[in-house]
Amino acid sequence: MVAIWELLLLVLANHLLRASEAGARPCLRSAMGLDPSYCLSWRVAVEANNVRAWRTVPAQCVRYIEEYMVGGQYCRDLDTVVDQILAYLNGITAAADGLDAWILDVDDTCLSNTLYYKDKHFGGDPFDRMAFKSWALRGTSPAILAVLHLYRKLIERGFKVFLITGRDEEVFCSSTTQNLHAQGFTGYERLIMRSAEFRGAGATAFKSERRKQLVAEGFRIRGNVGDQWSDLLGDCAGDRIFKIPNPMYFVP
Amino acid sequence: MVAIWELLLLVLANHLLRASEAGARPCLRSAMGLDPSYCLSWRVAVEANNVRAWRTVPAQCVRYIEEYMVGGQYCRDLDTVVDQILAYLNGITAAADGLDAWILDVDDTCLSNTLYYKDKHFGGDPFDRMAFKSWALRGTSPAILAVLHLYRKLIERGFKVFLITGRDEEVFCSSTTQNLHAQGFTGYERLIMRSAEFRGAGATAFKSERRKQLVAEGFRIRGNVGDQWSDLLGDCAGDRIFKIPNPMYFVP
Repeated sequence: MVAIWELLLLVLANHLLRASEAGARPCLRSAMGLDPSYCLSWRVAVEANNVRAWRTVPAQCVRYIEEYMVGGQYCRDLDTVVDQILAYLNGITAAADGLDAWILDVDDTCLSNTLYYKDKHFGGDPFDRMAFKSWALRGTSPAILAVLHLYRKLIERGFKVFLITGRDEEVFCSSTTQNLHAQGFTGYERLIMRSAEFRGAGATAFKSERRKQLVAEGFRIRGNVGDQWSDLLGDCAGDRIFKIPNPMYFVP
Repeated sequence: MVAIWELLLLVLANHLLRASEAGARPCLRSAMGLDPSYCLSWRVAVEANNVRAWRTVPAQCVRYIEEYMVGGQYCRDLDTVVDQILAYLNGITAAADGLDAWILDVDDTCLSNTLYYKDKHFGGDPFDRMAFKSWALRGTSPAILAVLHLYRKLIERGFKVFLITGRDEEVFCSSTTQNLHAQGFTGYERLIMRSAEFRGAGATAFKSERRKQLVAEGFRIRGNVGDQWSDLLGDCAGDRIFKIPNPMYFVP
């Protein structure tokens, strides 16, 4: 009999604890249900642009981010964002004047560098300019299929697609073009790469400038898709911006 | 002996599968490690402003969001964002002219409505204007302690804090003031509520207008904190914006 009373008391205490947490003063302490994860909080804060200018994935989150990238949740997140883009796309049409445009970023938006970052602890190691250069020059980055699907729809529906990338034009022009074509990204209006005058400039400054030029040419930017906030902020950002997940690196 | 060979084959097949997923073509299918969760994807997409104008939490995510709100992860996320704000705050100082300002939203930024939303399935039910009115008139929303801590630091460090809320001034002025004071939010510069002229206007339009006025008065908005993207977008948004988590409702 004592054991049953003890059990009932425990259940009651647990209920009271949970009620008080959701209740009078939330967030005084964690409850027991879910294991609150700092690394999940960090990842969400990255996606919401609350964490900026980070150089590497925090050491305690390297395993978590690896599991995120290869365990299925990254793909699920990608699909969810692309579904939102497609829903928005279904509500708009490209006018006959051929001036309705979309902007897409290249690295980890159209083309996946996950295979490269796998050898860099998925962002646990600091950025390695020379190694990334070799990787990008090979031109073997696979398409992110959800984005390729979106891309095809944009072309089909009569939008002009501009690919704007921070990759240096002189170094990466031919490898990037070949890579994109081999992976099915054909039929875009222009691939706009970083020219000599923007060497060393921040991505937001460079991309804003290029978008402003497009708007000056008469294009209406209906949507803008990138894995970095620096793709999406600044001038002439577009009617809607969409942040593709990427917890592996930060581009200022 | 056959059993051992079979086992080795299984291990090998598993390795190949995972390698191919992280490798040649990512996101063709989910791996086995983690259970990819649509509701987690949805929540992250809300925080990144990829999902907009939603009226209720998706039916299949109501249990998930409840667990998120009371199980500890919401509090963890809050703490992580506030830590980022404090880190940014440590790098700036308020000038002696008294014109360095911060903007904070009220509902679910300074004051928690989790207790109210608990009875509304944490956003699973559509917004109930009359019930929320009764709740807000009671003036018993508890402080979000992490934000109260931030608030105290801002005041201590000489920043002028402006609380800007979409709550109707005529209806909620006294209950909101009392609630804020009772919960420790004292010493702010102004509580700016929705005046009659902005009745029915979107939050971004109303808040932009009020921020523009502050800038016209000479204030420099050093930071802006809110649980809705409509608190943070628009004109004179501030030097840095911070998105406090909220998966329970969307304010346009």
